[in-house]
Amino acid sequence: MSVEFQPMRSLIYVDVVKEDYRHQLKHWLHRYHIADSISQFGPYVTKYAFYPALPTPPEGERFGTVRMQLTEHYWLISPFQNDLKVKTITEYMPLDTLKWQGMIPDTDEHLSENMDGDTHRSSGGKDDLPPFIFAFVPVCWEEDFKGKERTVEDGPNYRWQFVLRYPDCVSKEEGDGWLYKDVIPVFAEMPEVTRLLTSRIKQEVNSCPYNRVVEMWFDGPSSWYRAAVEKAAYIKKPGWAKHDKFPYLRPRFEISSIFVTDIAEIDNMTQYRG
Amino acid sequence: MSVEFQPMRSLIYVDVVKEDYRHQLKHWLHRYHIADSISQFGPYVTKYAFYPALPTPPEGERFGTVRMQLTEHYWLISPFQNDLKVKTITEYMPLDTLKWQGMIPDTDEHLSENMDGDTHRSSGGKDDLPPFIFAFVPVCWEEDFKGKERTVEDGPNYRWQFVLRYPDCVSKEEGDGWLYKDVIPVFAEMPEVTRLLTSRIKQEVNSCPYNRVVEMWFDGPSSWYRAAVEKAAYIKKPGWAKHDKFPYLRPRFEISSIFVTDIAEIDNMTQYRG
Amino acid sequence: MSVEFQPMRSLIYVDVVKEDYRHQLKHWLHRYHIADSISQFGPYVTKYAFYPALPTPPEGERFGTVRMQLTEHYWLISPFQNDLKVKTITEYMPLDTLKWQGMIPDTDEHLSENMDGDTHRSSGGKDDLPPFIFAFVPVCWEEDFKGKERTVEDGPNYRWQFVLRYPDCVSKEEGDGWLYKDVIPVFAEMPEVTRLLTSRIKQEVNSCPYNRVVEMWFDGPSSWYRAAVEKAAYIKKPGWAKHDKFPYLRPRFEISSIFVTDIAEIDNMTQYRG
Amino acid sequence: MSVEFQPMRSLIYVDVVKEDYRHQLKHWLHRYHIADSISQFGPYVTKYAFYPALPTPPEGERFGTVRMQLTEHYWLISPFQNDLKVKTITEYMPLDTLKWQGMIPDTDEHLSENMDGDTHRSSGGKDDLPPFIFAFVPVCWEEDFKGKERTVEDGPNYRWQFVLRYPDCVSKEEGDGWLYKDVIPVFAEMPEVTRLLTSRIKQEVNSCPYNRVVEMWFDGPSSWYRAAVEKAAYIKKPGWAKHDKFPYLRPRFEISSIFVTDIAEIDNMTQYRG
Amino acid sequence: MSVEFQPMRSLIYVDVVKEDYRHQLKHWLHRYHIADSISQFGPYVTKYAFYPALPTPPEGERFGTVRMQLTEHYWLISPFQNDLKVKTITEYMPLDTLKWQGMIPDTDEHLSENMDGDTHRSSGGKDDLPPFIFAFVPVCWEEDFKGKERTVEDGPNYRWQFVLRYPDCVSKEEGDGWLYKDVIPVFAEMPEVTRLLTSRIKQEVNSCPYNRVVEMWFDGPSSWYRAAVEKAAYIKKPGWAKHDKFPYLRPRFEISSIFVTDIAEIDNMTQYRG
Amino acid sequence: MSVEFQPMRSLIYVDVVKEDYRHQLKHWLHRYHIADSISQFGPYVTKYAFYPALPTPPEGERFGTVRMQLTEHYWLISPFQNDLKVKTITEYMPLDTLKWQGMIPDTDEHLSENMDGDTHRSSGGKDDLPPFIFAFVPVCWEEDFKGKERTVEDGPNYRWQFVLRYPDCVSKEEGDGWLYKDVIPVFAEMPEVTRLLTSRIKQEVNSCPYNRVVEMWFDGPSSWYRAAVEKAAYIKKPGWAKHDKFPYLRPRFEISSIFVTDIAEIDNMTQYRG
Repeated sequence: MSVEFQPMRSLIYVDVVKEDYRHQLKHWLHRYHIADSISQFGPYVTKYAFYPALPTPPEGERFGTVRMQLTEHYWLISPFQNDLKVKTITEYMPLDTLKWQGMIPDTDEHLSENMDGDTHRSSGGKDDLPPFIFAFVPVCWEEDFKGKERTVEDGPNYRWQFVLRYPDCVSKEEGDGWLYKDVIPVFAEMPEVTRLLTSRIKQEVNSCPYNRVVEMWFDGPSSWYRAAVEKAAYIKKPGWAKHDKFPYLRPRFEISSIFVTDIAEIDNMTQYRG
Repeated sequence: MSVEFQPMRSLIYVDVVKEDYRHQLKHWLHRYHIADSISQFGPYVTKYAFYPALPTPPEGERFGTVRMQLTEHYWLISPFQNDLKVKTITEYMPLDTLKWQGMIPDTDEHLSENMDGDTHRSSGGKDDLPPFIFAFVPVCWEEDFKGKERTVEDGPNYRWQFVLRYPDCVSKEEGDGWLYKDVIPVFAEMPEVTRLLTSRIKQEVNSCPYNRVVEMWFDGPSSWYRAAVEKAAYIKKPGWAKHDKFPYLRPRFEISSIFVTDIAEIDNMTQYRG
Repeated sequence: MSVEFQPMRSLIYVDVVKEDYRHQLKHWLHRYHIADSISQFGPYVTKYAFYPALPTPPEGERFGTVRMQLTEHYWLISPFQNDLKVKTITEYMPLDTLKWQGMIPDTDEHLSENMDGDTHRSSGGKDDLPPFIFAFVPVCWEEDFKGKERTVEDGPNYRWQFVLRYPDCVSKEEGDGWLYKDVIPVFAEMPEVTRLLTSRIKQEVNSCPYNRVVEMWFDGPSSWYRAAVEKAAYIKKPGWAKHDKFPYLRPRFEISSIFVTDIAEIDNMTQYRG
Repeated sequence: MSVEFQPMRSLIYVDVVKEDYRHQLKHWLHRYHIADSISQFGPYVTKYAFYPALPTPPEGERFGTVRMQLTEHYWLISPFQNDLKVKTITEYMPLDTLKWQGMIPDTDEHLSENMDGDTHRSSGGKDDLPPFIFAFVPVCWEEDFKGKERTVEDGPNYRWQFVLRYPDCVSKEEGDGWLYKDVIPVFAEMPEVTRLLTSRIKQEVNSCPYNRVVEMWFDGPSSWYRAAVEKAAYIKKPGWAKHDKFPYLRPRFEISSIFVTDIAEIDNMTQYRG
Repeated sequence: MSVEFQPMRSLIYVDVVKEDYRHQLKHWLHRYHIADSISQFGPYVTKYAFYPALPTPPEGERFGTVRMQLTEHYWLISPFQNDLKVKTITEYMPLDTLKWQGMIPDTDEHLSENMDGDTHRSSGGKDDLPPFIFAFVPVCWEEDFKGKERTVEDGPNYRWQFVLRYPDCVSKEEGDGWLYKDVIPVFAEMPEVTRLLTSRIKQEVNSCPYNRVVEMWFDGPSSWYRAAVEKAAYIKKPGWAKHDKFPYLRPRFEISSIFVTDIAEIDNMTQYRG
Repeated sequence: MSVEFQPMRSLIYVDVVKEDYRHQLKHWLHRYHIADSISQFGPYVTKYAFYPALPTPPEGERFGTVRMQLTEHYWLISPFQNDLKVKTITEYMPLDTLKWQGMIPDTDEHLSENMDGDTHRSSGGKDDLPPFIFAFVPVCWEEDFKGKERTVEDGPNYRWQFVLRYPDCVSKEEGDGWLYKDVIPVFAEMPEVTRLLTSRIKQEVNSCPYNRVVEMWFDGPSSWYRAAVEKAAYIKKPGWAKHDKFPYLRPRFEISSIFVTDIAEIDNMTQYRG
């Protein structure tokens, strides 16, 4: 059998570059894209949820915060396997949708030409435009630094999730060395942080430019600010950093964040009936 | 038979006064309030949907824009009929939830004392705190000024809905005279406005302080700004107005707005399974 | 309150005039019309089902058999009440859809101009084109002539349902006199007929041109043929008849039939998630 | 329009007279009866739930405790109106199902002859066999004696619901006089009772032999025993009583009880897909 | 672990040999077979849909067109693995159902004896009766010859799907040589054909007699007729052919077709609730 | 890829040690545990159903009958794989829930301290408290001794399922020798037994103390009694037995039973919407 069993979770960070596009992007997602996605991979996706982005907190831009939503899938197989290349129907993805998400320049024109999904998802990332973020991660978190005793009875969580990669000149080992030694322990000690998890991104699946995802929980944006802006200001700047302030990485290129609640807006696999 | 057939739609405008409360309010709505509401009125409610509020556009505060969501119900009977007074279970509504929505003062304390739902919904509206907005309207819009030929194929809409009442010194007739003569025709002429509808609020149902709801559709927040801020600036200020700029009404007391898309986040009657 | 409680069932007989249109009509129904209908009347419709038409049996044309589907609604209120006239969104109904159903002439052109639903549903019926059939009937059948002891354990039924009206020169009383005296008792006696029911059509609701609906059940099309073609050939031709063979009425104008199973293809109210 | 709007809730107490019949009764309910019921009244029923009976607590027989389930409906109209008499399909209800529920004598024979539902539901009640209990009550409880501040956060409830009627020689007024003066206040004072509600049964709908329903909540069967058996033993025996112990009524004829949790086993209207 | 991960799609072509059987076959499928199938393989089937057959177009018989439906499954494992042989409940499949589908001779008798599913599915194919068609294919199409840029916005499709095998005297290589050289390129060039795909059938799974499946899309049956009957008449007859007209194969034995729309009648995994 | 495909079914036997706990355990299962379970393993569980325990038949205690429910899962992967150790949210499992199920001593205290699920599920089994029963078995039964021709039309089944292990001094081979030679053939011959199946428990997955599961079907508890109590009394006592009566094993330690119907109370994967 040539299709391999490969249970994975994937994370898509969807940005919207201008408020004039938010309802258009939402309309396209709900009217076209959910159905297209389910018709392509439905039988081998077991969860497909949207988590709307919470408003960007003060100084959140510095952390590359996206403004639309986190799209989460659980997979049984990799959608990039060779045997899955032929699609019966191409996804309806006019260039406009790339413009709205910031992957191509924001012009005034209405760009109705269609692209196929794989081209879409590999766009961005050049000419000073951020890459499309589609990160495959293990089904469960790999490392658990704080808060594993937390239950649903402990109340709502303000979740900060971010992906990162280090500048080209820095090896993963060097970068992770800094992260594990100078960053994570500092956050783990802060009373504002109630949960702290991380996993390696499976870059081998689809050449995602990012290499790690981290998730921390807080009581709310004020706690986050105290922790990630005020207290983290004292985290040591690594020698290789080109940015002055924590997290010392280029927003939307080396770090991208999203803030979400515990509650998915919609679980498309159980709620959608085409 | 003592329970009267009274098909109606109702609109609840939910605000959130601080970003620290948004995920808490959402958690309470999803974990407690949907189930409580369905257990109380489920058999006689035929639609119960949440429309998340879009971000407030520039100068939207002047129009009393709420920041959390529009809750829409369709009813078969009025929930305020005498025969429906006894509830098997009281809704779980700690005072905190009123604080989050701005109906009681925003203190630092955690207010866990419970209130019943009817007291909750009649709170606010005094001591400079805005009233809770729960407006009953006819099933269909009463008056249709523009755009009735619009179909789903015409694309997504940026919907501006607002409720209003006139200052205490102004009669409904006088106020509506101004609205119908000086306001609505001006908007109806603007190319930015693609749809324009209004209905009288059924104040007899639950003594809602507001007396009219208006809905207009635009291409997006930039069109709205051009129309409601720039062009409407030329609308004549009525003699009774105490506020200098259009809409010449006190935000959150005489006018409250919400901006939403065409897409409900959740239709609780079909999606919820307690 | 001005909207009256009026529980009713309605029957729409949908024809398709050419096989080239069947999948187009189905596509329009599923992609546009179900959502449009639910968005207009969803809160006051409690069942909305499609029953696909079985293939027309031999000589079925003589009985005005439609070829697409029976659309069944159960209503809480009449959709034609005055207070329900304003629609937020007009139904997407290009003229093509009328052409496919035979309400306007079948030309080669692609007719994409839109009509609103009420105009649509009152079209047809002139220039030798059959009327659109939208019949309101009581919630339960009014008269039960045969087979009331039948249960689901008695196996599948081949259901023949038809609406009729008498020629313009014949009063309802005279026509029904013939039906009750010369037609129904004959069918009731036939062993092929396992169930026989009839109701008056509520023409007062929407001026439906037809005035009565009859439903009979058979074991299958061969039994139907024996009964309705062979044996019914001996039913007395009424003096006013202009057609030689039973049912002595003009197909698609004075009688329209549909053949269906017990199984709805889809119950849109429970299965559709927009 | 002849069908009246009549929102009501109904309660059916289903007994099973022998353990050998429990799985048979369940199979019939799930395989035949749910579908039959929905096909008959689905469009005008808005909730249709099953609550499985908890095991009968010690001395529960004295209170006429049924052992299968509470079936709860919410109605928009009365199913007994004249215009609803004709049913397209008769319910599949072999006499066996009456035997299992105790409405006809428990013989060893397999009684497969069918009955229609209305005959079924008016069976029992003679020759020392208890009546079928189908009680229509107002949508909300009429009287609330204790516990109205209780919310879902107060934890699970052990619910005791019972219907009663007084012996033939006692007027409703006299009987209720005893109930309101000597019984309810005693229970309302007991710390074991956390909730106490009552409504009149709408005997005018279907001539239900019982005339009142009472519901009380407890922490569990031990609390119930302390309250209803031990403490209630001191409740004054009315002059008209023919039974020595509280509740002084003939079990299954003058009082019938059921013990249930807060959780319905199934809400057929939302979970069933025929 | 002995059960292998083997994601596959399967296609069942269901015929009905006489109109008297159509509603009986449908009744059996909906009342018995869906539940039986889900209870057997539900946990390892991720899609299970029915596509009703469109009416056979003129000269469609020559292409072995089936008249009931296409049943489509997506699997995680092969149902024919050794470890899955024991079934808790045998499928309810009276011999009648084979008669209705044409796998055993069409007699007048009522054949109520039951068969198990696997025997059922391997029946037919002898004594001049066509084989049961149950073809396992890869999850995605293997080869894409035309139309891969098509999206849902391009409108409804008239889908022709067929399975084929070559006469016993012809090797697969020789047969496919003809198909790839003389047939597919001709269709690919026709403007009537908007999509053209093919996959090898996984005969190793269950010894399906057919070895290839092809799918083409058209605007409707008239376009299909122009393409597959009129224009294809010029396709060169291979030396080994025993039939005079294109497709030069024995209908129902060497070629079987079905015509369907894009719309499944039912997706049993999401819509069925036993 | 490190997560292995391992399709399995699992069986959890849930007991409740006192009637005062039944509604509390049910409330915890429905309010907390279903959601917790789905959030942990939902994407890799394809069926998750509850079968409520039927009342224990006379002498059922001797067979270690549990009184709450059978929880059944179908898995795609083992939840005990190393890569699945980190859980985002710990299950809400106060010690009370262990007390209710009999895994820790039944005290009067309210034990609200939380445990994580894995600790929970490995509790019990010491100090004379029975072990938690969580048995992984193959997807299909391994051995089928009787009744494989049974279909849904054969009516409802009274299902007896039990797990067993032999005393420590007896090898599996020796124990199974007795079971296969002296027990199973005797039951297979009894007319009361309509179905008889068995599988080995996959103790390698989670060290379940039991090693085999057996399921038999009867007409009802009277048939079961005749078979398992009266007739089985003649089954030869093995030399190693320490208990005098059949099944000669220590209840709740060497044999645990549950009696269920064919009907799941709830299939959480399709019915739950968090």
